[in-house]
Amino acid sequence: MQALRVALLGYGTVGRAVYELLTHQADELTERIGAPLEVVGVAVHRADVPRPELRPELITTDANSLVSRPDVDIVVELVGGVEPTRTWLTTALKSGKSVVTANKALLAAEGAALHDAAHAGNADLYFEAAVAGAIPVLRPLRESLLGDQVFRVLGIVNGTTNYILSKMDETGASFKECLAEATELGYAEADPTADVEGYDAAAKTAILGSLAFHSRVSLDQVHREGISNITAEDFAAARRLGRTIKLLSIAERTDKGIGVRVHPAMIPRTHPLASVNGAFNAIYVEARAAGQLMFYGPGAGGNPTASAVLGDLVAVARNRRNGGRAAGESTYAALRVHPMGETTTRYYIKLEVIDKPGVLAKVATAHADNNVSIATLEQEGLGADAMLNVVTHAATDAQLNATVSALRGLDAVRDVLSVMRVEI
Amino acid sequence: MQALRVALLGYGTVGRAVYELLTHQADELTERIGAPLEVVGVAVHRADVPRPELRPELITTDANSLVSRPDVDIVVELVGGVEPTRTWLTTALKSGKSVVTANKALLAAEGAALHDAAHAGNADLYFEAAVAGAIPVLRPLRESLLGDQVFRVLGIVNGTTNYILSKMDETGASFKECLAEATELGYAEADPTADVEGYDAAAKTAILGSLAFHSRVSLDQVHREGISNITAEDFAAARRLGRTIKLLSIAERTDKGIGVRVHPAMIPRTHPLASVNGAFNAIYVEARAAGQLMFYGPGAGGNPTASAVLGDLVAVARNRRNGGRAAGESTYAALRVHPMGETTTRYYIKLEVIDKPGVLAKVATAHADNNVSIATLEQEGLGADAMLNVVTHAATDAQLNATVSALRGLDAVRDVLSVMRVEI
Repeated sequence: MQALRVALLGYGTVGRAVYELLTHQADELTERIGAPLEVVGVAVHRADVPRPELRPELITTDANSLVSRPDVDIVVELVGGVEPTRTWLTTALKSGKSVVTANKALLAAEGAALHDAAHAGNADLYFEAAVAGAIPVLRPLRESLLGDQVFRVLGIVNGTTNYILSKMDETGASFKECLAEATELGYAEADPTADVEGYDAAAKTAILGSLAFHSRVSLDQVHREGISNITAEDFAAARRLGRTIKLLSIAERTDKGIGVRVHPAMIPRTHPLASVNGAFNAIYVEARAAGQLMFYGPGAGGNPTASAVLGDLVAVARNRRNGGRAAGESTYAALRVHPMGETTTRYYIKLEVIDKPGVLAKVATAHADNNVSIATLEQEGLGADAMLNVVTHAATDAQLNATVSALRGLDAVRDVLSVMRVEI
Repeated sequence: MQALRVALLGYGTVGRAVYELLTHQADELTERIGAPLEVVGVAVHRADVPRPELRPELITTDANSLVSRPDVDIVVELVGGVEPTRTWLTTALKSGKSVVTANKALLAAEGAALHDAAHAGNADLYFEAAVAGAIPVLRPLRESLLGDQVFRVLGIVNGTTNYILSKMDETGASFKECLAEATELGYAEADPTADVEGYDAAAKTAILGSLAFHSRVSLDQVHREGISNITAEDFAAARRLGRTIKLLSIAERTDKGIGVRVHPAMIPRTHPLASVNGAFNAIYVEARAAGQLMFYGPGAGGNPTASAVLGDLVAVARNRRNGGRAAGESTYAALRVHPMGETTTRYYIKLEVIDKPGVLAKVATAHADNNVSIATLEQEGLGADAMLNVVTHAATDAQLNATVSALRGLDAVRDVLSVMRVEI
């Protein structure tokens, strides 16, 4: 049996875990593939770090040369970032090497270029690890649900923000306090912007939306809001409504095309996504025939991510053994991605109002003028401290936004204290 | 594009849903496969039932001839039962037709014969719908987790029993009352034996165990116990322990080989499986690198099952278009399936004891004599009504069984009121 030759780009936590699994399970993997996997090169940033488990001749700092070697069958990319990975992977794919990557940023920004290169080189491009770590969700969307029509994907796909929001819900502490704890425990990075402001989740949403709806969705089309403005009062309000707050990654098919968005939202405590706590991830899928499915598990970490990478590696290795490749990108539906303003959603709005007659009428009129109807209106406190909690019925985000602007302009409204979407 | 020609065996609830999806989504399926699917025959038991949506010339009562037609590419079997489906499907597979089936009983009893026939005919055998309806769990086990080592699969794979147990937990009602309600609502069949006594779950466990551990596991190797003896008192006891009761389908890899079993068990209320209620199914998978994953969704019903069948149909159709087949059965590990007696588990035991000094010592001795150590021992009630609740530490099922026998033999023990396994 001729070995399949693997080049590994990147040797951080995930790369090391992949190498360890490849070595530790070599016999099992050989049985499962029908041929051994052989690592023929490992591209690293710095060659002078001690890596006693790697034979020195495997190590190179020249990834360009490694991906161009004619004897490499499969390239596994675990470096991250858009460049130079895009160059490396398009080179590899165009020359017929299959690629396994966990690089969500690259796929969300340059997915089209990568898929085109895979098509040109008749090579496989697999990326299960790019979304929700070890949770098998891309393969089900790409394959298991192909006889069905997905109409909505709702995900908790960022462990850092889910850890923070779970803590805020549980303890009543502020965002800042919970972020500090997440940082201390290693759940948040020193610069948490990519997680906390929703950039990471937005990249994953673009990938999920593309697969679920057989269309191309790119990162810049995903509406994105983070969680740094969420307050303990927001959680208290959610609790009064029987809800909690999650950072949702939403990709949905509507009569206007595809909506893709990442933002915090109040969801019912009884929904399966509400009990996804801590750094766990979950993807909830609604399909026409299948109904409601949920996939749950660890969304990050060296070993879980390596498990997803290895699953893909076995798949592309089997395809090569059989002389074929899997069905590539599917974009036949070519649905339009509609802007956030056209999205149908509901708002929770908290207002600080003045203590005078007629306030309610003015607030109600501001809604009616924008074709937004009010589902519930609750007055909290009395006199000078009076606050109004409004939950709207469904309307477009543009109408709801216009309503909030109108409310801000009312003399009767001292301040708009909180605006949050209500989903499910 | 030449159409792929499909024969449908069976036209009950699922068959009808499959036909409806095939018709309704014809254009989308053509795009996803790269060729249209054409239903060329539907085998039914009785031809004289009105089926206005089917062209009359499609209908036949002669399934044997249909599966032997040389122009059929793919056979979809939705009849159920071991014979004559085994004959039909082996005929189809040996002549190179790919097969999609939802027939768990056949796969659990005759899986080896079917896989051999698929190998002989170089044909695909797919059966996602056989376990947990629309929930994609077989494909993740067969493919996504191939780079990992699964060591345990814990499933709630029977909606009828889960509905009954959820109701018992929620309302405190008896098994009989909850079964009657399930029957009335259509969740239980007129003869509920296959569900209630765990036969259905046992078949699914054999399939899960085979896939998870790359070995052959057949139905007769699965230890099986049903839920008909579970009482409201058992639920009350579980609640005192912070637990609930579920009918678990367990396939696990141990140092003795593979353990496969179906039985009710007390599980912690905080475990994700504990919140799987009503007729829903869930499969919890523990793997070395991935950690803990859960797949959740509707486990039965015409449309969810049809979704899984269609997903498989698209997969085998694509494989045929590419001139290949997927990797077939993987049994290289050939692990031994060990008997229930060797399984390590824990017991909850409820004893009615006499009101005399020295009882506790005798009960403790009966455990110690069988090398079972006691985790907790709680006395409930006083005097003549005294009862003992024992939870053991882990021991083999044989040791625990011997302990229960010894307890039954003690003069100090009036009755063994309840014995239930404690898992997770």
